[in-house]
Amino acid sequence: MPTIVQKFGGTSVSTPERIMRCAHRVLEARRAGNRVAVVVSAMGHTTDELIDLAAKVTPNPSPREMDMLMATGEQVSVALMSMALHSLGCDAVSLTGGQAGIDTDAAYRKARIARIDHERLERILGASGVPVVCGFQGVAPNGDITTLGRGGSDTTAVALAAALDVAADGGTCEIYTDVDGVYTADPRLVPSAAKLRHISYEEMLELASVGAAVMHPRAVLFGEKFGVPIHVRHSQKPDLGTLIVPEEQIMEDIVVVGCALKPDLGRVSLKGLPRGAGIQAQIFEPIAAANISVDDIVQTEFGDATTIAFTVEHGDIADVKSVCQELLGRLGRGEIDVEVGLAKISAVGTGMKSHAGVASRMFRALAEAGVPIHNITTSEIKISAIVDRQHGERGLQAVHDAFGLAAGEAVTAAMQSSGRGRR
Amino acid sequence: MPTIVQKFGGTSVSTPERIMRCAHRVLEARRAGNRVAVVVSAMGHTTDELIDLAAKVTPNPSPREMDMLMATGEQVSVALMSMALHSLGCDAVSLTGGQAGIDTDAAYRKARIARIDHERLERILGASGVPVVCGFQGVAPNGDITTLGRGGSDTTAVALAAALDVAADGGTCEIYTDVDGVYTADPRLVPSAAKLRHISYEEMLELASVGAAVMHPRAVLFGEKFGVPIHVRHSQKPDLGTLIVPEEQIMEDIVVVGCALKPDLGRVSLKGLPRGAGIQAQIFEPIAAANISVDDIVQTEFGDATTIAFTVEHGDIADVKSVCQELLGRLGRGEIDVEVGLAKISAVGTGMKSHAGVASRMFRALAEAGVPIHNITTSEIKISAIVDRQHGERGLQAVHDAFGLAAGEAVTAAMQSSGRGRR
Repeated sequence: MPTIVQKFGGTSVSTPERIMRCAHRVLEARRAGNRVAVVVSAMGHTTDELIDLAAKVTPNPSPREMDMLMATGEQVSVALMSMALHSLGCDAVSLTGGQAGIDTDAAYRKARIARIDHERLERILGASGVPVVCGFQGVAPNGDITTLGRGGSDTTAVALAAALDVAADGGTCEIYTDVDGVYTADPRLVPSAAKLRHISYEEMLELASVGAAVMHPRAVLFGEKFGVPIHVRHSQKPDLGTLIVPEEQIMEDIVVVGCALKPDLGRVSLKGLPRGAGIQAQIFEPIAAANISVDDIVQTEFGDATTIAFTVEHGDIADVKSVCQELLGRLGRGEIDVEVGLAKISAVGTGMKSHAGVASRMFRALAEAGVPIHNITTSEIKISAIVDRQHGERGLQAVHDAFGLAAGEAVTAAMQSSGRGRR
Repeated sequence: MPTIVQKFGGTSVSTPERIMRCAHRVLEARRAGNRVAVVVSAMGHTTDELIDLAAKVTPNPSPREMDMLMATGEQVSVALMSMALHSLGCDAVSLTGGQAGIDTDAAYRKARIARIDHERLERILGASGVPVVCGFQGVAPNGDITTLGRGGSDTTAVALAAALDVAADGGTCEIYTDVDGVYTADPRLVPSAAKLRHISYEEMLELASVGAAVMHPRAVLFGEKFGVPIHVRHSQKPDLGTLIVPEEQIMEDIVVVGCALKPDLGRVSLKGLPRGAGIQAQIFEPIAAANISVDDIVQTEFGDATTIAFTVEHGDIADVKSVCQELLGRLGRGEIDVEVGLAKISAVGTGMKSHAGVASRMFRALAEAGVPIHNITTSEIKISAIVDRQHGERGLQAVHDAFGLAAGEAVTAAMQSSGRGRR
C-alpha cells in the first residue's frame, strides 16, 4: 500500500474551517488506498505573532528560548488537525517533532535533522492511524526543542517521506500550498505561463535560486538526496500539481522548463583594487558574515588595477557599502560605485546540458524585445541575464515566448537539435 | 542556601510587562540569598482561547489532543519568562513538564503526578541558574503530553518544592496570585477581615471547601502530604502574604481562623422513601456519576418512611431533580421537594478540636443578628450553618465579629478556655 506524506502550510490551516478542508484531503487520499502521514505548519500568522511577543519582552531573545516559543505554533496545529480527523472518523495521533522521532543537532533556530526514528510513525500507520506531525521542529541530543529554520516544515515532510521510504511503494510527499504547482514563469507576470506536470530536483533548485518561491530549496535538496518524489499542490483545489522527481524519470526532454525574474537588484563595483591573491576573500568573507547573498560576480583587470563587481538585492546595498568602505579604507585605495534598478532574467532546464543554442536563443529574444543585457552568468542548467529593472517583465515574457513555454508549446530536445548552434 | 519555588498564575503573566515584573520578583528572591525555581501558568485568557479554538473544530475533542493543545499555553509562558530573566542578566532555562522530569499517569486532562525526576532541575540550580517550568503539565509513560486538570499549576509548584525538599533548608513554595493572602473572611463581604499570617493545611482545606477560593485544595493536600510550606502572596505587591504550614508550627493557638460564605445553595428533600438498606446509594451514586457535589445530608425517619435532604449549588438543581425523579419513578413512591435561596456560613479552625463553646458562640452570634438557622453540619475543625440567602452577608459579619477575627482581635485558646461550655 503506498504511503503519502501530506504537508499543509500555514495558510492552509489558518482557520478551523480550512483545517477541516485539509482533513478531508487526508481522507480522500486514504479512500484512494494510501497510508497517510500528515505534517502541519503553524496557523496563519501565529509565527509572526510569537516573534512579536518575544520582541516585547526583549530585543535579543536567546535562540533556545525562541525555539521553545516557536514550537508551540505547530503544536496547536497538530492538535486541531487531529481533532478534525477524529470528527471525520479517522484515527489520528498528533505528535511533536520529538515524539515523531525527529532528532536534530543542537543548532537552535536552524537545526539540521540528524536522524529520524520512525518506529512510532510506523506503529501508528500499521494500526491504520494517521500520524499528524509538527513541522519545523525536532529535539536536540539533550532533549531541548529545536526548530529547523526557514523551509523547515517542507523539510520535515520530505525527511519523513524519506524515512518512511515512500518511493519504494509508489508513494509521494505532497506539499499543499497556496499555488497549484510550478509554472513555466510567474503567472502574475506572464499570463500565458503553463503549469509543469514534472520538474527535476535540479531545475526546481535553480528556479528557486532565481526567484521562484514555490518550495524552499532545502527541502528540494533533501528530496533529491533521498529520491523522494515531491508533489506540489494547491490546498483548496483538487487538481494535480507539479511532481518534482529525479531527472531520469522525466521522459519528455524539455530544454527549458521555466524562466524567472528576480527584480530589484543593485550592482556594486569596486574599482582600482590592488591585483594579487586574496583580495576576493577580503571582500566576500565579511559580506558573507553579514549574511548577505551576492551573485553574478565579475572581475576585470586593467594595468595594475582590478575591478570586482557583483549584484545584491536592493535591501542589502547599505550594509554592503559599509562593509566595502571599511575595506577600501584599510587598503588605502580603490573606489566604490553602486548602480541600482537592475533585474535578473533566468531560463532553467536540464536539457541545456546536452543541447545547443539555448543561450543564443535567449539573447536573440531579449535583443528583439529591445532589452539590453548588462551581464550574463550561466550554470550547467541555467542562463541568467542582468537587465534594467524597467525591462524585467517584458524580457521575461520574451524569453518565455522564445522557448515556447506557454501551455502545449514547449521546445523539446528534438526541435532544439534541428537548431541554431551551441549556446 | 534555601530553595524557593515561585509560581506565577495566568493573571500575573498576562502581558510582557507583567512577566517582566514577575522576573524582578525572581531576582529579589535570589538577591536575598535563595536558589529559585519558577513555575508559570498560561498567559491570561490563553487557555480559554485554546478551548474555543478546539470547539470550532469539533464539539467533542479527544482528551489526548486537548492536552497536546492546552500544553502550548504554558510553553509560551516559560519561554517568555526565561527571556525576561535573561534580559535581567539571570541564567534561566525554560522546561516543559516532561523536560522538568514530571512523570504522570496517562489520565489525559486530569493526570496525577507519579514521580518527579529532579536531576535536571538540580543541575540547573547547582549552576546558579533558574529553571522555569511549565505548570499544569507532565508526560505520560508513553511519552504523551498530559495536563493535571484544575489547580494544576499550583500542584506543579508544590510538587516541585516537595521534590527539591525545600523545607529542609528553610525554603518555601510561593504562590503568586491576585489576592495578597488568606483572610479571616472575604474582604469584599466583611470589610474588617484581617489577613492571616499563618494557617494550617487542614484549615486552608476546610476554608476552600466552604467557599474561600485562594488556592486549589489539591495543591494544599499535596503540600500537607509532603510538608511543603506554601506562601500565598500578591504578584504585584511586595508585602508578605499567608503561610500555609503544618498545624504544629503555628504557635499562637487561634480557635477560629476564618469564616466563609457559600451563597446560592438549594435544598433537595426526598420524602416518603422506603426504609431499608441501600436507598442512600441509589440516590447518591447517580448524582456523583453526574459530577454534582452534594453537602449537608440529613436523614430523618417517621413510621415506615424516610426523608433524605441535602444541599447542592443552584446551578446543579435541574440535573439533580431529573436524576431523583427517575429514581422515584423506579421506586413507585416518594416525592421531591426543592427549596432555593439558601446559603452556608462556616467557621473554621483547628483550635475547635480541643476547645469548647465554639458552636454555641456561633449560634448565639447568628441568633443575636436575627439569622434563623435551617440546618447545622460540623467536622473536626469546621461548623457550618445553612441560612436564608438574604441573611448570608449579615450572618457572616456577625460570626466574624463573634470570634474577634478583625485585625488584632482574634480569640485565642486562653480566652476561650475561660469560656462558655462545649460546643
